[in-house]
Amino acid sequence: MARSWVNSAERIGADLHLELSGSGGRRAALIDALRAAVRDGRLAPGTRLPPYRSLAADLGVARNTVADAYAELVAEGWLTARQGSGTRVAERARPLRSEQRARPPRHAGNGPVTAPPRARAPRHDLRQGTPDASAFPRAAWLASYRRAVQQAPNEVFGPGDPAGRIELREALTEYLARVRGVRTAPDRIVICSGFAHGLRLLFGQGGGGVLRGPLAVEAYGLGFHRALLGAAGVRTVPLPIDEHGACVEGLGRERAVLLTPAHQFPTGGPLHAERRAAVIDWARARGGVVLEDDYDGEFRYDRKPVGALQGLDPERVILLGSVSKSLSPALRLGWMVLPERYVDSVLAAKGEREAWASVLDQLSLADFVSSGSYDRHVRRMRQRYRSRRDRLVAALAAHAPHIEVTGVAAGLHAVLRLPPGTERSALKAAAWQGVALDGLAGFRHPETDMPARDGLVVGYATPSEHAYGAALEALCGVLPPGEATEAPTGG
Amino acid sequence: MARSWVNSAERIGADLHLELSGSGGRRAALIDALRAAVRDGRLAPGTRLPPYRSLAADLGVARNTVADAYAELVAEGWLTARQGSGTRVAERARPLRSEQRARPPRHAGNGPVTAPPRARAPRHDLRQGTPDASAFPRAAWLASYRRAVQQAPNEVFGPGDPAGRIELREALTEYLARVRGVRTAPDRIVICSGFAHGLRLLFGQGGGGVLRGPLAVEAYGLGFHRALLGAAGVRTVPLPIDEHGACVEGLGRERAVLLTPAHQFPTGGPLHAERRAAVIDWARARGGVVLEDDYDGEFRYDRKPVGALQGLDPERVILLGSVSKSLSPALRLGWMVLPERYVDSVLAAKGEREAWASVLDQLSLADFVSSGSYDRHVRRMRQRYRSRRDRLVAALAAHAPHIEVTGVAAGLHAVLRLPPGTERSALKAAAWQGVALDGLAGFRHPETDMPARDGLVVGYATPSEHAYGAALEALCGVLPPGEATEAPTGG
Repeated sequence: MARSWVNSAERIGADLHLELSGSGGRRAALIDALRAAVRDGRLAPGTRLPPYRSLAADLGVARNTVADAYAELVAEGWLTARQGSGTRVAERARPLRSEQRARPPRHAGNGPVTAPPRARAPRHDLRQGTPDASAFPRAAWLASYRRAVQQAPNEVFGPGDPAGRIELREALTEYLARVRGVRTAPDRIVICSGFAHGLRLLFGQGGGGVLRGPLAVEAYGLGFHRALLGAAGVRTVPLPIDEHGACVEGLGRERAVLLTPAHQFPTGGPLHAERRAAVIDWARARGGVVLEDDYDGEFRYDRKPVGALQGLDPERVILLGSVSKSLSPALRLGWMVLPERYVDSVLAAKGEREAWASVLDQLSLADFVSSGSYDRHVRRMRQRYRSRRDRLVAALAAHAPHIEVTGVAAGLHAVLRLPPGTERSALKAAAWQGVALDGLAGFRHPETDMPARDGLVVGYATPSEHAYGAALEALCGVLPPGEATEAPTGG
Repeated sequence: MARSWVNSAERIGADLHLELSGSGGRRAALIDALRAAVRDGRLAPGTRLPPYRSLAADLGVARNTVADAYAELVAEGWLTARQGSGTRVAERARPLRSEQRARPPRHAGNGPVTAPPRARAPRHDLRQGTPDASAFPRAAWLASYRRAVQQAPNEVFGPGDPAGRIELREALTEYLARVRGVRTAPDRIVICSGFAHGLRLLFGQGGGGVLRGPLAVEAYGLGFHRALLGAAGVRTVPLPIDEHGACVEGLGRERAVLLTPAHQFPTGGPLHAERRAAVIDWARARGGVVLEDDYDGEFRYDRKPVGALQGLDPERVILLGSVSKSLSPALRLGWMVLPERYVDSVLAAKGEREAWASVLDQLSLADFVSSGSYDRHVRRMRQRYRSRRDRLVAALAAHAPHIEVTGVAAGLHAVLRLPPGTERSALKAAAWQGVALDGLAGFRHPETDMPARDGLVVGYATPSEHAYGAALEALCGVLPPGEATEAPTGG
């Protein structure tokens, strides 16, 4: 064996910085040094360790200290002690493979380790789905959080109610009634981590959830939701959409339908009054249920938003909402407003205790809503996003008058309709110019027989205020030229 | 029709508190009043509404205000407007069924609506699983939270990295290495909402997860974990346990095993050094993986805790930990320390963006750990729980010397071994006396052929400091008398 225990002991001694207080410290330091030596391969598997007495003398520590340290490392599995063969480094205590230790941290190639999850930050971020992260109301939120933590009864820090804190459910009952026309009561609200968590609770695993598929969905919608449902074994059936929203008269034998009634996602129209009525009638006649994704219901710029569909029939509509668009996706807080008959099964799906949403954040949001900070923030953001949308429309009118902005003046994104066949090249041009945004094709249900639409989904809320002008300019630069659509078609 | 529109209009007028500013306010108030009247049945389905002009005159508002309000409610679906039949209350706009409106809020029967989730708070709560909720370090946590929110870069408030914030993964890498002997790197840690979320990420839905069943588990463990795995389609195979912990030599064709090596849950012994070694050998030979549930690794009272099994082979052990025992289950923060080869698939299971753990809480915990507050808190709680355990042992020695406390001096709970056949009656007596605690039987895997053990699982950390003495006294009062075991068995 190349390494004698004497060498090993010397190395261990060298590793030890024995300027420690008391024998407890020395024992701990010796354990750490021995463990480190085994880990990094200086003490190879199979190496026999020096007898207690020798190492103790070398290091100037008590024999018991060495005996204790060996025993500890035997207990942990680093060393083995067998009658007659002394104490040896365990065969299994191999060091980490070198290629793993040398592996660079993820993301390191494209910037600092603290880079955001997206591998390479785009120059202009116009992806839909997030509010302006620079506008988070830090001071007001901190004030609510401080009040919540200081005033919380002790039981808050124990296991939580899976329905969510009553303070938050009460605040939401009042808020949603006032702002969205929702009719509910605190005992019909269940707090969750966001919209996707709500869907998971409803559809469960392998079809064992509160609701069963197939689920009718709008032919244009979030692929992420379809994927999540697919993973849960739920088939989604696309409903065509037209200028009046989803064609709910096409509902077949499905027992559930997922809609975005206030502002069709992503194409942007509200569900027409007759269709609102028709889908409630369908649900009543068939024993069905409507899932209302109220993802941006607070943000309407030209008029008061249409009230939630849920208000029409609280027994036939499940409303799902969250703070992800209104405040920040960093909080991971959402809610489900449930018909009476689903409350118990959703709670059962959630588990005996709150396993998801931070209880302190729940209390903080309750304070934030009931103190009026939430209204103030939404009002401020409504103005900001409205101005963003106006600037987008103005920029297009000036630089690309052939490009139409579809949908109502609402939300955090707009859809720019493109001439047929130009979406892919526009996306390529955008990528080339460092403009991150999505095309309509990515939102299209793969099974729909609706004719495909070409368009760009522009998340005008995403950039910070100072970055928006440049992003708009870059966007205008990548749009397809107007000649293509203006050319005479009769030639 | 019993109700003429004149009556209706008068009622609507009575509902309106027209001390409002501007016509926008009047319009909104009129909409709210009309909606409310439809909702609560004062305006019955089918009722014809007064013409614009009449209602406008009755209420003293502009005709356009009434027209706008009707249009709004038609758009929302409360009213219908058909050529020739005027504006009517929609047939579908039925009020909430009265029995639902009369339904009392949940929990209301047993106390205030803000009562904790457990239906009836026990007089003495000795259930395992939670730290002393009265000891949450509010001031220190708030200080960390404030620093985190104030210093966070803007991107924190956008979509989060599903791996978790790098600041927290770095802090945990250092902390777990120092305190638990864990060998890892920030890019191998994935943040989650707690242990159960970690299990869900690993086993996914319907067997489609990162790992596949069957999963070997300890014959005594949390029924909640078995149920969660069962719901995900994962069969659990019980490993018997003895005084050296789980009998890992009995591992069969399973490819994964879930262990509590530091402190078998709930029976209380650490996994013996030879078994620590053996299970690593098994994992290497079979290509298997060990899931290490390090649920209370920081709390050992008689000596330094045995290091994590993970340190022995970071490529064969997944360590799962959380702050639920050390700080509070209200935070919903946990972590998975992963072998290299599982990182990408766990991240894929988690999704493209952080959908679970509050990003602000993550940053706050990172600050709490790296500022030393976490160490200070754990140290304080270690002393408190140690004294709780000592008082339990002393109380038993004085009042029930025939009852043995099993396992090592560690953790937040102890198991009191009971004479065979006495567990059920002891639990009954406890319930009668208002002492909430669990029996060992509830933790036993239904398929194990291990002989059943009688015992009580006492969560001595759960009560607040001032309530503990009375809880102990009550506990001693419900234990089976000593005569039963001391009686001669030869008779």
